[in-house]
Amino acid sequence: MDTAIQRHIEDHLPDYLEDLKRLCRQPSVAAQNLGVKECAQLVQQMLEEIGFSVRILPTRDPRFPVVYAQRAGRSSKQLLFYNHYDVQPAEPLELWESPPFEPTERDGRIYGRGVSDDKGHLVARFAALKAYQAVHGQLPAGVKFCIEGCEEIGSPGFAQFVEEHKDLLKADACIWEGGGVNWAGNPQITLGLKGILYVELQVRSAARDSHSSYATVVPNPAWRLAWALSTLKDRNENILIPGFYDHVRPSTPLELAAVAKMPDEDDQLKQELGIPGFLKGVHGESLRRRHLFEPTCTICGIESGYTGEGSKTVLPATAMVKLDFRLVPDMRPDDILAKLKAHLAAQGFSDVTVNFSDGEGPSRTAMDSPFVKLVSDTARDVYGKEPILVPTMAGSGPMHCVSEGLRVPIASSGIGFPDDKMHAPNENARIDYFLKGILHAAAILEAFGKG
Amino acid sequence: MDTAIQRHIEDHLPDYLEDLKRLCRQPSVAAQNLGVKECAQLVQQMLEEIGFSVRILPTRDPRFPVVYAQRAGRSSKQLLFYNHYDVQPAEPLELWESPPFEPTERDGRIYGRGVSDDKGHLVARFAALKAYQAVHGQLPAGVKFCIEGCEEIGSPGFAQFVEEHKDLLKADACIWEGGGVNWAGNPQITLGLKGILYVELQVRSAARDSHSSYATVVPNPAWRLAWALSTLKDRNENILIPGFYDHVRPSTPLELAAVAKMPDEDDQLKQELGIPGFLKGVHGESLRRRHLFEPTCTICGIESGYTGEGSKTVLPATAMVKLDFRLVPDMRPDDILAKLKAHLAAQGFSDVTVNFSDGEGPSRTAMDSPFVKLVSDTARDVYGKEPILVPTMAGSGPMHCVSEGLRVPIASSGIGFPDDKMHAPNENARIDYFLKGILHAAAILEAFGKG
Repeated sequence: MDTAIQRHIEDHLPDYLEDLKRLCRQPSVAAQNLGVKECAQLVQQMLEEIGFSVRILPTRDPRFPVVYAQRAGRSSKQLLFYNHYDVQPAEPLELWESPPFEPTERDGRIYGRGVSDDKGHLVARFAALKAYQAVHGQLPAGVKFCIEGCEEIGSPGFAQFVEEHKDLLKADACIWEGGGVNWAGNPQITLGLKGILYVELQVRSAARDSHSSYATVVPNPAWRLAWALSTLKDRNENILIPGFYDHVRPSTPLELAAVAKMPDEDDQLKQELGIPGFLKGVHGESLRRRHLFEPTCTICGIESGYTGEGSKTVLPATAMVKLDFRLVPDMRPDDILAKLKAHLAAQGFSDVTVNFSDGEGPSRTAMDSPFVKLVSDTARDVYGKEPILVPTMAGSGPMHCVSEGLRVPIASSGIGFPDDKMHAPNENARIDYFLKGILHAAAILEAFGKG
Repeated sequence: MDTAIQRHIEDHLPDYLEDLKRLCRQPSVAAQNLGVKECAQLVQQMLEEIGFSVRILPTRDPRFPVVYAQRAGRSSKQLLFYNHYDVQPAEPLELWESPPFEPTERDGRIYGRGVSDDKGHLVARFAALKAYQAVHGQLPAGVKFCIEGCEEIGSPGFAQFVEEHKDLLKADACIWEGGGVNWAGNPQITLGLKGILYVELQVRSAARDSHSSYATVVPNPAWRLAWALSTLKDRNENILIPGFYDHVRPSTPLELAAVAKMPDEDDQLKQELGIPGFLKGVHGESLRRRHLFEPTCTICGIESGYTGEGSKTVLPATAMVKLDFRLVPDMRPDDILAKLKAHLAAQGFSDVTVNFSDGEGPSRTAMDSPFVKLVSDTARDVYGKEPILVPTMAGSGPMHCVSEGLRVPIASSGIGFPDDKMHAPNENARIDYFLKGILHAAAILEAFGKG
């Protein structure tokens, strides 16, 4: 990459760390509506300082606006960065070794809420742009930022925002919110997210709880739910909703080859998850295939009746279960929701109400996309290690509306590493990987401007 | 019945109401360990005042002793009264129209916690004995009292107490804690209780909760429970545990005839239970047969994962369900527990832990027992209405250890009526039925001494 840029970035690392601390000192907890608006304004200010024209645009919920920014570059091509300026709640506070909103440097890391997810990634991108601005007075290509304010609470209204601002957000490629290296230090480039359908099933069988001696003659909503659930998935993990798998796109040879090449981290994973073994005895490549390419149906919560200490002989009047379905291409949440409802009705569970909670489509960028090669080649160059291509995460996020709505390839890049404690106390960013993340952002932009 | 006794009782009703208020002023909430010991001492004193020799005997839990009392009579036959001196908690206090532990008379009723369940029944028996003492200086037959202190929390240790004091408690017949009339004012004589097995099933699949994106590879304890539950009972309410129904004793022609003669209270019951219709569409006689003679398997509570507002994408580490089984003669809780465990193991649910919580055998006195005829004939005499014989309650209580352990016939008698709000705020006793209960106790004792 451009050696002047590289040297400038390396020389100015302390400045970029100051920028990171500055942004992380401003709380922006969407779940608590804490500092969100102030943070949007700070992000606007930081972007204006590097020559961007910035607009704070409302979403469906005015508490959580999107910060949109753009700046033209040498090439007419446009690179879109998707980020979010909101963070997870800092609680439980007592487990932090330094205050979550006073970013603190120790042992080569910065500690604080958001230093990794997602302010660290965002500031690394600012730093790369700042370097181009300082060294060349110009960006290699046009850059747009779409920085949302409620990603940590499920991005309500974001898909609608993207739909309504397609022209504004129009780009040729997109770098997703974050990325980084695996335990071995190889950069991981992730190309997709699963979709999700989150529903709550509810049953009410009576106006009030009964004494359980009436179980002979009073319908029990908890039994109704248990029976309904047992028609959704069998004990071999096969989801039984008719048509559920209809739109599952077969994995491509390239995707399967990528999964085969991913490192075996089974033991680390088992330890992290606190389990003696994996479901259905999968391991290694079969585990990774299953984890990345299979849709799921998960009981996230269930409740009915008396759940305290000891015994209470009650026949509950209501029962509820929260379910999430993780969806793979080309499944659609509205289609699965309709199939779930039809299945329950066909099975005689018209007493089970299905309440829609959240839905997002899956997204997966083709492994042979030229943009994937660009991100991968620049990563190899910056990190000095072979990149690991990951066809998709097992998790979900608002990627579908961008990849499908804007029809852009999406890849990941960032400052992360496995021990960064995202979402947990003592969230941290390694300074060495923060630097790598800045260099990778700069290298991507440079290659993108040339391509 | 003895007209001198009858006149004495009618003349001294105000005294007996004072006795009732005296006993109800003393709180004795087992669940809160409130006043239990003091109440045992007061009961002892009241029994000594009517010439009984009384002992306060410890049970497994020394906080809840049994008050045992005996007095010889003209006949050598012994009539045992089973009662309890503990009461339900008075909460929610704000719903009481007069303070729960300040018994208050209004509109022909006494209001207060325990005025019906079970202090009203107990004091009615004291009153009958007091009358015999005053009028004849002697009881028609020997009388024993076994008055426990923790019935409202499931009688822990009571079965063991009875087992260990068989000789002391030896009797020829037993009157159970309470009884009374139905909506139409006919005395109801109940001859049994169902047994119960209460268990908690628990599953732990991981050391900690996971993000639900790991549902592909991490076992879900809530699914395990849902599947395990669906093997216990089918959607037609058939309990599927092998051997579950093996020891269900067929109803006798007398029992079936009694159920046929019971009044149809379906509409009142539906309203009381807050349901539009009964399970499996039963009604009338088929409802009563099912309700009284069928064993049950009930989900009393179930909990796993996130159950708060909104959506949380969590894969829970643990799940639990509380189940009760109501048992009919000749089922046994230990047998059903063993069959449940064997069934779960055979179905591959070795990960489901079964924790025993409570167990009690069923009890049912034969309808053609001479004692039943005695209680029924005296009721017809006292109430002036045809008695309704009820082969069993659908509920449970510590009757099995008495009926089987002491080999006595058991029937009910008491002061109750359907609107007495047992276990609820504004528990009350109707003074007219309090008087009837005293008269019935006296009539039973007199007939028993002659028989």
